Amino acid sequence: MKPTLATRRRGAIATLAAIGTLLPMPGALAADLLPSWNDTAPKKAIVTFVERVTRPGSPDFVPAAERIATFDNDGCLWAEQPMYFQLAFALDRVRALAPQHPEWKTEEPFASLLRGDLKGALAGGEPAIAQMVMATHAGMTTEEFDRIVRDWVASARHPKTGRLYTEMVYQPMLELLAYLRANGFKTFIVSGGGIEFMRPWTERVYGIPPEQVVGSSIKTRFELRDGKPVLVRLPDVDFIDDKAGKPVGIHWHIGRRPIAAFGNSDGDLQMLQWTTAGSGARLALIVRHTDGEREWAYDRTSSVGRLDRALDEAQARGWTVVSMKDDWKQVFPR
Amino acid sequence: MKPTLATRRRGAIATLAAIGTLLPMPGALAADLLPSWNDTAPKKAIVTFVERVTRPGSPDFVPAAERIATFDNDGCLWAEQPMYFQLAFALDRVRALAPQHPEWKTEEPFASLLRGDLKGALAGGEPAIAQMVMATHAGMTTEEFDRIVRDWVASARHPKTGRLYTEMVYQPMLELLAYLRANGFKTFIVSGGGIEFMRPWTERVYGIPPEQVVGSSIKTRFELRDGKPVLVRLPDVDFIDDKAGKPVGIHWHIGRRPIAAFGNSDGDLQMLQWTTAGSGARLALIVRHTDGEREWAYDRTSSVGRLDRALDEAQARGWTVVSMKDDWKQVFPR
Repeated sequence: MKPTLATRRRGAIATLAAIGTLLPMPGALAADLLPSWNDTAPKKAIVTFVERVTRPGSPDFVPAAERIATFDNDGCLWAEQPMYFQLAFALDRVRALAPQHPEWKTEEPFASLLRGDLKGALAGGEPAIAQMVMATHAGMTTEEFDRIVRDWVASARHPKTGRLYTEMVYQPMLELLAYLRANGFKTFIVSGGGIEFMRPWTERVYGIPPEQVVGSSIKTRFELRDGKPVLVRLPDVDFIDDKAGKPVGIHWHIGRRPIAAFGNSDGDLQMLQWTTAGSGARLALIVRHTDGEREWAYDRTSSVGRLDRALDEAQARGWTVVSMKDDWKQVFPR
Repeated sequence: MKPTLATRRRGAIATLAAIGTLLPMPGALAADLLPSWNDTAPKKAIVTFVERVTRPGSPDFVPAAERIATFDNDGCLWAEQPMYFQLAFALDRVRALAPQHPEWKTEEPFASLLRGDLKGALAGGEPAIAQMVMATHAGMTTEEFDRIVRDWVASARHPKTGRLYTEMVYQPMLELLAYLRANGFKTFIVSGGGIEFMRPWTERVYGIPPEQVVGSSIKTRFELRDGKPVLVRLPDVDFIDDKAGKPVGIHWHIGRRPIAAFGNSDGDLQMLQWTTAGSGARLALIVRHTDGEREWAYDRTSSVGRLDRALDEAQARGWTVVSMKDDWKQVFPR
């Protein structure tokens, strides 16, 4: 039977698509895509894993559709010191909204923050933080919040480096994301951070579209306002995508088990366990903050990004541990 | 500067990928991809819309990444009579699990069902149905449930047609899914049905991967069982992806507003409102069950897939309404 124009054309498109995702990537070429990584064990572990799962005929070959890779965000793709960047956003928003909230002048933790006493504002611990997050993250529509986040990331600067927060991303991890995608992987963020705080900029900064971002969330409600449908953000926690919540979030959003997962703290332990418990080749990688000069050095006792149990388990199970100081030529983009 | 092998190769891949998603599809060819559609108004509305958003230089051009299309499942992609297929699954599971539940012999609604009295079993309405759904959908791991669903769809047959349920899908809608994807769209299911009931077969049947399925869900809990991580399904509703829940589910899973949405009942009304409220060209389409001979004919008073308010709104707003009887050459695949 003679193929029709339509079937020939569809065949050509399918072939092109297949070439785009399945083209084997020789090792030397792969290495070129990771120029900010030293030629130490972690880079070798990454390249070896990718070759095992992508080489046709390999006993560990994984079809492109199943090449799911999940990345934590805070401390894994971008920095998280001296405080989680989303907390810096919340504090900036409290300051910006203060004129509309005269009651905050006498109400903690707002009063301390507005007096310039950050330590006092944070002294109430998680409940105080939750109060400031809810006061700044709820009560508007999803479109309004999107705009607020876009404006903030376009202008707010890190207190130590003076860079935009979205420039405090790790160059080696940007290369790793691109390298995996060039090898047919679908890259996801799976973060304890707010899903709506990340989505406005992850596509531009990481190449990760909104539908591939998994995170913590508050509830939203559908409403018609003057006949126009909106989603209103409510001061009510819906889901915490951290620790044992990460496999739950992965399952609900993605519905497949990742074959590679990347984290940096105890909040990622269950994601790494869940990922490595699948059959076939798996990659679990932890970014360890060992570089007090170019970044920060912290692990077992840090209140931000604590890495303790997950480090023990990484060592016991032979997961890949990246030392920023030793394994990365460069930390932030130039 | 001479391009390196790596940059040339990356450039070639990017070009191929761009061709795959952006290749303009002339109208005649487009029509070939929808052979089960009559040349009536709905087909014209679909093709015109797709050309408007995909033709480079068109004032309504939408970049491929933003070409999000959402489809209801029950009554839109597959049939839903004489009862939602997931309810048939739940009833079959009650029968299969009965030997492990001697108490069901005297406990309603189980007792009636096990005596063969379907009407009696369903007489308790939604609470009775919820009881049977929870008894059959919770209490196992996500992997166990996946296997149960796969086994059921591979063997259970529709009472009227004797077909597998996954053969009760609409041929014109399969063509529409493929046509949209050939034009760079990303197709999602947004269904009131259970997300985990759909995911095991949507990729094979519709070409829609698990991560593009949005649905109702029960809660899951991460556990280590003998050191092996599992997700346990709990008898606790997490999210109902129906009516006003659909825009919420779309926002949480996808994070972008669809430019095209396809439904068939009042459960889809808010999804269609949400989709059409965005700026630029939008397509809202309702499949109307008008074919009592080849399928079923029902609308404003049906207990399954009621189409009443959404039909009024479709007429008021000029949304596309497909009459299965008049607009489809064929209903089910041959």
